[in-house]
Formats: sequence, structure tokens, C-alpha cells
Amino acid sequence: MPRAITAFSNPLIKQIRTLREKRHRRESGQFLAEGLRILAEAEEMGVLPEILFFATDGAGHPIAQRLIAKVEAEGGEAIETSRDILHKLSGKENPQTVLGVYRQPATDLADIDRTIAPIWLVAQALRDPGNLGTILRTGDAVGAGGLILIDDCVDPFSVEAVRASMGALFTQRIAQARWGEFLPWLRAGEGQLIGTHLAASEDYRAARYSAPTFILIGNEAQGLPADYAAACDLRVRIPMKGKADSLNAAVACAVVTYEVLGQLGG
Amino acid sequence: MPRAITAFSNPLIKQIRTLREKRHRRESGQFLAEGLRILAEAEEMGVLPEILFFATDGAGHPIAQRLIAKVEAEGGEAIETSRDILHKLSGKENPQTVLGVYRQPATDLADIDRTIAPIWLVAQALRDPGNLGTILRTGDAVGAGGLILIDDCVDPFSVEAVRASMGALFTQRIAQARWGEFLPWLRAGEGQLIGTHLAASEDYRAARYSAPTFILIGNEAQGLPADYAAACDLRVRIPMKGKADSLNAAVACAVVTYEVLGQLGG
Repeated sequence: MPRAITAFSNPLIKQIRTLREKRHRRESGQFLAEGLRILAEAEEMGVLPEILFFATDGAGHPIAQRLIAKVEAEGGEAIETSRDILHKLSGKENPQTVLGVYRQPATDLADIDRTIAPIWLVAQALRDPGNLGTILRTGDAVGAGGLILIDDCVDPFSVEAVRASMGALFTQRIAQARWGEFLPWLRAGEGQLIGTHLAASEDYRAARYSAPTFILIGNEAQGLPADYAAACDLRVRIPMKGKADSLNAAVACAVVTYEVLGQLGG
Repeated sequence: MPRAITAFSNPLIKQIRTLREKRHRRESGQFLAEGLRILAEAEEMGVLPEILFFATDGAGHPIAQRLIAKVEAEGGEAIETSRDILHKLSGKENPQTVLGVYRQPATDLADIDRTIAPIWLVAQALRDPGNLGTILRTGDAVGAGGLILIDDCVDPFSVEAVRASMGALFTQRIAQARWGEFLPWLRAGEGQLIGTHLAASEDYRAARYSAPTFILIGNEAQGLPADYAAACDLRVRIPMKGKADSLNAAVACAVVTYEVLGQLGG
């Protein structure tokens, strides 16, 4: 049976609330995801939260009912609480009726099997959690295997990134590595590395892609470092007809990735 | 000569700070844009701020110097101030060294001349200011004429939208209209209306586009209303290979728009 927590001062509430900070997420190896849609998607992927918080007024929803039963059957904890406490936990003005505390999956390159998918996304020094989540969502949409984060990227398990991913965080593998680890790993197997680069001479539609294709997106402000771009098998550019010289990073990623998907027959 | 303001209690600071709220922007007809990059892009388009705030420690930058001189020559006001006050005005942790107070351009459909560009973007009930700004930025990149906002969209002059547009707010025309005004306006001239729709049967790459193409993007959560989709000349879908059933709205807009650009020879 779910227990109820109604006091803001409850130690568990205080502890879970700290998961909004990266340091605490790293220490505990946990992260937060909220909303029936995202939690149901995780469940469909076979991933259940360690702790499930649900609002008293939302407990009647069939998905919430199923989640509560499953979490308890698997030895996790289901906790009934108030909207006010959910607001406190998620930091959102209008909190969702459910919030899950999940275990972070492994993020080692060694855990990535590149043969399972024709497309892999790679982001370098990405700063914006919304962009990261949106790129995960695009990865899911094209049937990519996952997202490899190079150098110092924003935390993929931040509340904002999880939210923007719309559940894709649970369908996409995530690895984190330095460039000096990634490149030898990539070259130890098959794979075409595509860099999106403003100075590239090849139009992204004229380039020819072959699976597995690794699509590398650079930092929002600086783009790819020159030596990273030089290490790519192909450097492609997206035509720019206006005053601006670049697209949003998640948009650029999607435009190239959908061209790759089309060429690979998807 | 620029005057200096150093007191938080200064009435002008208090007034300008209110422009972070939509109500005050609508009343005054002004909005805020910050950062040398965006202000320089506006200047290039012939648009100067009515008031230019600049940080004492940033006044030496050649672009800042030029902006200060131009604003004063045009009868505007240049005001030297502190980083703390710029932080207060913009609400950003690390404020930029310049912030401009601009006059909102007209946003009537009647001001749109559709013949000036092959592509126009149209968004319906868009809720996220980051998405709106990103769509403007994509519009600039493909050489679109502008963005038409249908029904109740988020304010394009919000600080977040202006920021995400990266200056495209000054290159793209913006109109706001109800659907009941837009459709008769569209049909009174030439133009192909393309709806992105999950239930559409035509793959966006198989559809054939002709200029001027109006690309209609629906609300982030609901997508296009069925009757809006039915009124389109073509309804196209983007292939989804994963668990999720949709892309981020700005991403979906960009994927279709770049296909249209390619077909129109861009």
C-alpha cells in the first residue's frame, strides 16, 4: 500500500528535491521525470521509477493505477502526496500528477553497441538542456540508437532536458566521453562521422551517407572546433539564405538527420 | 552625450523593467533586445533602439560605440549604466553589455506583401517562446518572408522569444491574426498552404511544393485542429521511426521548411 507524505519538512521530500541540482544527481545516481506521458513511455521501455510520487487527486487515472501497482510489485515505493509538494519537488508552476525518481542508466561508451541502429547522434559541448532534450526526441523519431555527449555537455538528466526529451530519454542510449576517448572508439569499428560545419563546402543534401552514420553537432555558440571537424569523414553545411549565419543546434541536427534518414531508406 | 543612471530606484529603470511583462509591452508598444550581436543585426536592418543602455565596462567596444553614436544622431537616448542594473532590466544572470528598447513593428496581415519571398511560416497557438524564436531564426535561414501567428500564440516580443530568434526578429516580418482572418486573406491571393499533421498520408518528401508556400505548424501539445488541417492544400507528415509520435514544433517546422527550400531550388 502506498504511504502518504503531506509534510514539506519530511526528510525524503527534502532529499528528492535536491535532485534538481546536478551535484546531487551525480552523487545519488538518480534523476526526476514527471508526467503520465513520460512515465508511461518509460514503463513501455521496461523502466520503472525507484520511487513514484502521485497526487491524491490524480491517483484514479488508469495509468497512475498501473504504475503504482507495478512499482510496488517490483519492490519500489509509491507515495501519495499533495500538489503543493509535487510543485516543491518539480519546481514547476503547474506540477504534473505523477513524478518518478529514476536510476541513471550507465553512460559509458563501452555500453554502446553501434550495430543496433543506422543513425547515432553526437553532441559536443552542448550547453542548453532544452536543446539536448530536443535532440534526444529527434533521435527517437528517426530511430537513432542514442546520443553520445562529447566533452562538457549540460547534464542529460536535468529536469529541463528530461522534460524537452518527452520520454526519449528512456528510448535513447546515452553515453558521455571526452573527444580523445570517442574518436579511437569510433575508429575501432565501422561508422561514418558527419560534422555539421559552417565552413564546410559540401551541401548536406549532396553528401552521400552510409550506415552507421554518426552525426556530430557542435556547441551552440562556437560550433565544432576545427580539429574535430577535420577528423570527420564528411563536413556538411546547411544553406543559409538570410542574415543569420547559423541555425539553432537542435534544428540543424534535425535537418541533417532527416536527410540521412531519407538516404538510408527510412 | 550619454547620460548615466546608477540608481535602481530611477523611474526609467523601473518603467523599462516592466517590459518583461506582456501587458506592459502591449501598452507601450515597446520591447527589449539584448546583446551586441542582436543589436548589430537590427542596426544592419536599419532598426535602431529608442533607448540604448550600455554597461560602463562595455562602452569601448567598436559596435557599442557605433550604436551609441547612431542612436543619438537619430534622436534616441543612450544611457550608461552598471552591470547590476542591466541584470535588473534583462533578468539574466550574466547580462549582456548592451540592451535596446525597441518599438514593436506593425503586426497586421495587411502589412504583409506575400510576393517578396517564396516561403512564409505560419504558427497556430504556439505556446513556447523558445520555439517561436527558433522558428523565426529558421525563417531567416531559409529566406522566408516572415512569420504569421494564428490565434493565441505566445508574445513574439517576449525576452525569451527575442533571445531565441538570435536577431531574426528584425529580419522577419511578423503578423498576428485569427484563423478566420488569415484564411480569407490567404485565398485572396496566390499561395499553397501546407499543414504538418500527424494523420496526414503524404510523406513530406513526396509532396510537391510551389511558391509562395505557407507552412503551417500547430500547437505543441495538440497539433493542428482538424478543420485547419482540412483547409490546407496539402497535409504532410514526417516519418516517425521511434516510440514518440511527434517532434518538437520548431524541429518539425525546420525539417519541412528545408525540404520546401530544396524543392524550390534554394
